[in-house]
Amino acid sequence: MKKEKNSKLKIIPLGGLEQIGMNITAFEYEDSIIVVDCGLSFPEDDMLGIDLVIPDVTYLKNNADRVKGFFITHGHEDHIGAIPYVLREINVPVYATKLTNGIIEHKLREHNMLTKVKRKVVKYGQHINLGCFRVEFIRTNHSIADAAALAIYSPAGTIVHTGDFKVDYTPVFGDPIDLQRFGEIGKKGVLALMCDSTNAERPGYTSSEKTVGKTFDHIFADHVNSRIIVATFASNVDRVQQVINSAYKYGRKVVVEGRSMVNIISIASELGYLNIPDQTLIDIEQLKNYPDEQTVLITTGSQGESMAALSRMSANLHKKITIQPGDTVIFSSNPIPGNEKAVSRVINELSRKGADVIFQDTHVSGHACQEDIKLIYSLVKPQYAIPVHGEYKHLKAQAKIARELGIEKENIFILSSGDVLELDAQGAAVTGEVPVGDIMVDGLGVGDVGNIVLRDRQHLAEDGIIIVVLTLESSSGQVVAGPDIVTRGFVYVRGSESLMDEARKVLDDTVYHCMDKNITDWGKIKTEIKDSLGEFVWKKTKRRPMIMPIIMEV
Amino acid sequence: MKKEKNSKLKIIPLGGLEQIGMNITAFEYEDSIIVVDCGLSFPEDDMLGIDLVIPDVTYLKNNADRVKGFFITHGHEDHIGAIPYVLREINVPVYATKLTNGIIEHKLREHNMLTKVKRKVVKYGQHINLGCFRVEFIRTNHSIADAAALAIYSPAGTIVHTGDFKVDYTPVFGDPIDLQRFGEIGKKGVLALMCDSTNAERPGYTSSEKTVGKTFDHIFADHVNSRIIVATFASNVDRVQQVINSAYKYGRKVVVEGRSMVNIISIASELGYLNIPDQTLIDIEQLKNYPDEQTVLITTGSQGESMAALSRMSANLHKKITIQPGDTVIFSSNPIPGNEKAVSRVINELSRKGADVIFQDTHVSGHACQEDIKLIYSLVKPQYAIPVHGEYKHLKAQAKIARELGIEKENIFILSSGDVLELDAQGAAVTGEVPVGDIMVDGLGVGDVGNIVLRDRQHLAEDGIIIVVLTLESSSGQVVAGPDIVTRGFVYVRGSESLMDEARKVLDDTVYHCMDKNITDWGKIKTEIKDSLGEFVWKKTKRRPMIMPIIMEV
Repeated sequence: MKKEKNSKLKIIPLGGLEQIGMNITAFEYEDSIIVVDCGLSFPEDDMLGIDLVIPDVTYLKNNADRVKGFFITHGHEDHIGAIPYVLREINVPVYATKLTNGIIEHKLREHNMLTKVKRKVVKYGQHINLGCFRVEFIRTNHSIADAAALAIYSPAGTIVHTGDFKVDYTPVFGDPIDLQRFGEIGKKGVLALMCDSTNAERPGYTSSEKTVGKTFDHIFADHVNSRIIVATFASNVDRVQQVINSAYKYGRKVVVEGRSMVNIISIASELGYLNIPDQTLIDIEQLKNYPDEQTVLITTGSQGESMAALSRMSANLHKKITIQPGDTVIFSSNPIPGNEKAVSRVINELSRKGADVIFQDTHVSGHACQEDIKLIYSLVKPQYAIPVHGEYKHLKAQAKIARELGIEKENIFILSSGDVLELDAQGAAVTGEVPVGDIMVDGLGVGDVGNIVLRDRQHLAEDGIIIVVLTLESSSGQVVAGPDIVTRGFVYVRGSESLMDEARKVLDDTVYHCMDKNITDWGKIKTEIKDSLGEFVWKKTKRRPMIMPIIMEV
Repeated sequence: MKKEKNSKLKIIPLGGLEQIGMNITAFEYEDSIIVVDCGLSFPEDDMLGIDLVIPDVTYLKNNADRVKGFFITHGHEDHIGAIPYVLREINVPVYATKLTNGIIEHKLREHNMLTKVKRKVVKYGQHINLGCFRVEFIRTNHSIADAAALAIYSPAGTIVHTGDFKVDYTPVFGDPIDLQRFGEIGKKGVLALMCDSTNAERPGYTSSEKTVGKTFDHIFADHVNSRIIVATFASNVDRVQQVINSAYKYGRKVVVEGRSMVNIISIASELGYLNIPDQTLIDIEQLKNYPDEQTVLITTGSQGESMAALSRMSANLHKKITIQPGDTVIFSSNPIPGNEKAVSRVINELSRKGADVIFQDTHVSGHACQEDIKLIYSLVKPQYAIPVHGEYKHLKAQAKIARELGIEKENIFILSSGDVLELDAQGAAVTGEVPVGDIMVDGLGVGDVGNIVLRDRQHLAEDGIIIVVLTLESSSGQVVAGPDIVTRGFVYVRGSESLMDEARKVLDDTVYHCMDKNITDWGKIKTEIKDSLGEFVWKKTKRRPMIMPIIMEV
């Protein structure tokens, strides 16, 4: 088949635009598809019992023969978390920088998938040719080391995808974002810029990670007589490095606590992304050998997650660490939206136990603010702007910035997941859509919990369940046992006997009525039971527990 | 019985110190008890299905003959919400200012309690003598009109309780806080100050409510061509007044939407707390008779509450209002901790529908910031400081302010609910505790949902339920029907037939094993079923649904 001259590039976000997380975007040109990122998201409040959510990649599966590879911008869960699920079904290589690849390998190992997924470690500046595409990794800064932007070269033009990024002129590890290269690529002409919108509502510039290190030094200087506990994101290796630096400077030993933290730190130090002075890191079991004021704990739980180490300490549930009056606890993080209350709860519990809790100037964002975003636009000078990463209001805020920088309204695209944007230098438009959606993962089950199950869980959670069992004799259709009532999550039986007695009477009447009217159809009997008992319970309690009649036959 | 000369005053917080809301404090001197406020709190995330939480007032019930009256500082739910429940059991008068009383009456009417609770309307400056106590109402400012601080005079000394308050030199309605009276009472000597801590972490002063009116004027001036929708707290009558003022100034008609908003506005305007120019307020049905740009909607839903009017509009579920591109939506509120994500969701939905959403400078707090708190301390000059209203961290922040103002550490008391603080000029100490706790209200049930029911609801919500039914013949103990399996909230049956088939096989084996071993004890049979099926399900799915065996006998 001969190639048409005028093929357009297609950009298809397969997730990540309706909610934070689950970043995954397909780029398609003729017979080639490449995918950028492959993230998961965490369940919304109404997804009861769900562990995590991954994108529906039916579109990729249906076009598996054309998919050439996955390019990962950095090692956060919302960019890599779905790899073990998605790459099980689409067997192509995954390209990433060294630390990102290390984190991916750890994840694959946990899923027994390490041998099943091909991985390629890429250096900044390296170009990968796959089908019609060439992809270049460009150095950026973010709240995890080794983050990359991608320049995606296609016959229809060049796309610059920033990934999650910030502009840090003085990063803790490695070099600043490669602004020169952004400028160089921009100079040659860029079709579209897909730029991180997370902080697009925030004016000004994002501070350097190094500013946090200075705050740590001040806090360590002010608290020489107390144990220091620092909670932060497990993946923020540079933050951990700075805690270690301050600890070393002030002669303290460092303990790392919390499974995800231990994992990331071991990967990062193995790959050379952490510089830990000899004899600084000690095991938690050795803590007792040092006076409190010569120790620092770095821990998970900065988001108030109930199972994380700091939360367990705050609730007196941690096996090895007990919070003592005088402890200094630093939250080196901001609450992610939705976690504010849980974080407050942990802070209150720590304060109540006498800890001095510090959370001012102890965190900087990993995302570009408005002026940084303007800088990238001004270097890249794209024909089209496609804001990515963020809630709708953030995408819209970036669209406003793009407008201010002179990009015409019709050249700015706020896409929804599943939209097919076709573009080349002559024009761009959303021309269709592909199926997308959330696949819920619960335990080992991927996608076996759907809306019906969730609705049932919601119903059970609200008002509990009343089970009515009844045994009928098959020959006569007469009741030979029951109706019996069992409840869970409705009311505690003590004190509610009379309610249950009355309910039993209602049921007896209903069943008697059915027998009397010669109603033998089980479906009808069940409906009668549901209706009469439901009405009785609502009248008496203003609650609507799930009512489940079960009929047996002997 | 002769009075002892050296009796001390007892202050007993019965709620409100472990979590926001549920403010209720008993003051006790010899045979007299008075109570300040009687609030409810809203359920925590883990209180599934619970509508609201009220305080356990066992202590008051056990001492009902000594309780003389309730004094209410203002009309917010966390200060009045438990009145219909608590006053059902303790029949004493409730003292409050006019608007507060109006809101209480509305609430009592909803609970069919209006004739059962005695109410007394009090004016600022008025003194009420009850038993050993004299209580004076002092004018303050807050995010609801008619807020009062209380001076509680007892033989052991004077307590000043601020209620929730701010210092507003230019309030929208009525006069500024009566600082002179605070000074006068302070000059005569105050034993203890119980001061609002909500904003004790915030430096500076709280802005006047009037500043919001100016912002409204600017927004109205900038958006003359679009419909304006303002979401705010239903009870913030002054805020509503300012929307009405701007609307009138810019020639717009005003519609009020949302049940709680309509209620409060009708109470407030009936009692003269709202000044609505003729023909400004129109019914929602009349909206269609006016061009969009001549209308304003004032609505509930500023906290993202899923059932509130604005949330329904944002989700296209509102019967009468459809959000249109170009609509201006003003959030005149800050998210209450815990509501951030819900508010974001509504903002995103509104933006997606083309609305211009504004939330900057459109709200001021109703609580005193650090400098305001210092002002009150400096006027009252108490011997003891007892921070109230706020989470633990806020109480602690106020304690720090009190220290800075020269109050000795041992004269500052951060109490927990149930603590009995005994004090007079000679000394103060926590000398005991009384039973306190959360009573959960679910539908009509008060206290019938306890921890067991909640734990069951949590379990059901996480992984659903598997019900196993079995009919045994009483004479032989043999299985004559079943075991049958029914599930809810576990997995959706389609696609999981094979799992269910295997589960049935496991059950058959278990039951056969029981019969074989002559196990006839139902408890043992149920345990065997739970264990074997539980293990099978965990191995296959990594889930732990509730397993409920039910045995019937014929």
